[in-house]
Amino acid sequence: MKIIVDGFGGDNAPACVCEGAALAVKELGVSVSIVGDTDRLRSVFSEKGLSEDGIDFVPAPDVIGMEDEPTEIIRSKSDSSMAVGLRMLKEGKGDAFVSAGSTGALLVGATLIVKRIRGVKRAALAPIIPSIEGNYMLIDCGANVECRPEMLVQFGVMGSVYMKRMMQVKEPRVGLLNIGTEKSKGTPLQVESYPLFEEAPFHFVGNAEARDIPFGGFDVVVSDGFSGNLVLKLTEGLAGALIGEIKGIFKKNLLTKLGAATVLGPMKEFKKKMDYTEVGGAPLMGISAPVIKAHGSSSGKAFFNAIRQAADYARSGMIGEIESTLAKKEA
Amino acid sequence: MKIIVDGFGGDNAPACVCEGAALAVKELGVSVSIVGDTDRLRSVFSEKGLSEDGIDFVPAPDVIGMEDEPTEIIRSKSDSSMAVGLRMLKEGKGDAFVSAGSTGALLVGATLIVKRIRGVKRAALAPIIPSIEGNYMLIDCGANVECRPEMLVQFGVMGSVYMKRMMQVKEPRVGLLNIGTEKSKGTPLQVESYPLFEEAPFHFVGNAEARDIPFGGFDVVVSDGFSGNLVLKLTEGLAGALIGEIKGIFKKNLLTKLGAATVLGPMKEFKKKMDYTEVGGAPLMGISAPVIKAHGSSSGKAFFNAIRQAADYARSGMIGEIESTLAKKEA
Repeated sequence: MKIIVDGFGGDNAPACVCEGAALAVKELGVSVSIVGDTDRLRSVFSEKGLSEDGIDFVPAPDVIGMEDEPTEIIRSKSDSSMAVGLRMLKEGKGDAFVSAGSTGALLVGATLIVKRIRGVKRAALAPIIPSIEGNYMLIDCGANVECRPEMLVQFGVMGSVYMKRMMQVKEPRVGLLNIGTEKSKGTPLQVESYPLFEEAPFHFVGNAEARDIPFGGFDVVVSDGFSGNLVLKLTEGLAGALIGEIKGIFKKNLLTKLGAATVLGPMKEFKKKMDYTEVGGAPLMGISAPVIKAHGSSSGKAFFNAIRQAADYARSGMIGEIESTLAKKEA
Repeated sequence: MKIIVDGFGGDNAPACVCEGAALAVKELGVSVSIVGDTDRLRSVFSEKGLSEDGIDFVPAPDVIGMEDEPTEIIRSKSDSSMAVGLRMLKEGKGDAFVSAGSTGALLVGATLIVKRIRGVKRAALAPIIPSIEGNYMLIDCGANVECRPEMLVQFGVMGSVYMKRMMQVKEPRVGLLNIGTEKSKGTPLQVESYPLFEEAPFHFVGNAEARDIPFGGFDVVVSDGFSGNLVLKLTEGLAGALIGEIKGIFKKNLLTKLGAATVLGPMKEFKKKMDYTEVGGAPLMGISAPVIKAHGSSSGKAFFNAIRQAADYARSGMIGEIESTLAKKEA
């Protein structure tokens, strides 16, 4: 199993990329190709005393940045580490690709270079989000700002297959993000999607109200990219704000500091539970080979988790099942 | 100052309505008309030992429920406590109206019975939501599932006037709910609204990303009703889920219970800060007289706060300013 990693994507590249890759080789027994400025990558390995066993460095002279137009990945930035990595994936020089770089560029690059699974209308960005009960996949989260009902149905299929094969959920519960539980609720997109969801080849459990999602009850929440992005970002922001406030309470005085000490262990567990970097990155669902978007501010640990997720994805047989399910549906 | 209150709206009606009304008379020096089954209302007052000073009971034989179609408020439910209260407001028999009943019915009733402010295209439901920094108005939150850019501009005007007159914010910072800070982000609605916001008669500070909103930085966040409802409900749900988890941590064992005791005071303050019932209810902005939607599960305290908010609204001169601002804009 070989994972291709973009050495120059994200805020902490290349240092955390190298750390995550070295740890993945050691812990998971995979090999890793890191793409980018090989001199810089090698110097990170030597500075940090990381072993180069199982690692190879693939040169790419350029980097696509957050400020670049996503489509530049197939134009002026076709020699960027992200573009080179995606071409390697397409050519079978690795089993999966991980990048913490620009989401837009990764989406365009994956769609145009690696291509979509046969029958898939649109790729979708689908992070795994913590809830009180466990985790759910939120699909789409920003790849497709506007969607048609048929696209949402496909997102449901892909999310359901992911949760079954990757998270061992026997019969994933799929919900449609909406502002009420009734069939008639929402914009025309939700109203038209509801009856299609009832007929779809997955376990549809009804509309998913934003108030209920954090408590669990859904393994997959399907949404257009605009609404999904709101849910993702608000979850991040609100969890950060609330945890920050509680930390502030604990630091108020000596007594509260002592109080905090007694709950430190469970609080850490809780923080870990709410930390989506623990589950890796967000898969780009619908691409014909595994592509994982790691969070822009990924640490070494987060890169490690994203590489593990990429390896699991490559082993899962998911892509074949998505293709056959969609083909059956159309037939 | 007389506030009209729907005696039979919400999960805790009529008991909590009566408690809130009696407290409002005592604390705020307003008088209150409570609308509904007068026998039942009077028996709540006597059972709870509440004073009837400053209270009058207005009979209404019917109640509009959550399961009724909102438009029934002007048809089969025109004798409901909500409809009777709204007609009283229209006829000048009170200065403001408060109900914890069906949001849809209240919106239809307020629009068709009380009518909109001249020049206002659509009324909007606009709760005040806590952030780490203070509070912001989220407008619209579900009254208008689909919106046009001109409607969003009016929501910005109304929200800005509200925060200035009611919350003493000198120059309210208005943000457009979106999935990125760039002008080009979002669906056509946001993209087309951005340049209109730049020219609008309020202090536009740019797109409001869902990740940033909980930390503050905005006094008004403008949205279509679908997206706004997602933000409102997710904020409620996530705050509830996180606070529940933290309570669970505290209850783990004797040591953590002792720890919890030391932070109990500040935790209560924090919970109060995150509790939107503290600020009252959600005003229906754009209606030609003050209408406040109290939360469906309002306690006596929450009804009291909603009545206080209604009285402040009636005193604020807000409706005149909204009308003149919109007239100036059109001129």
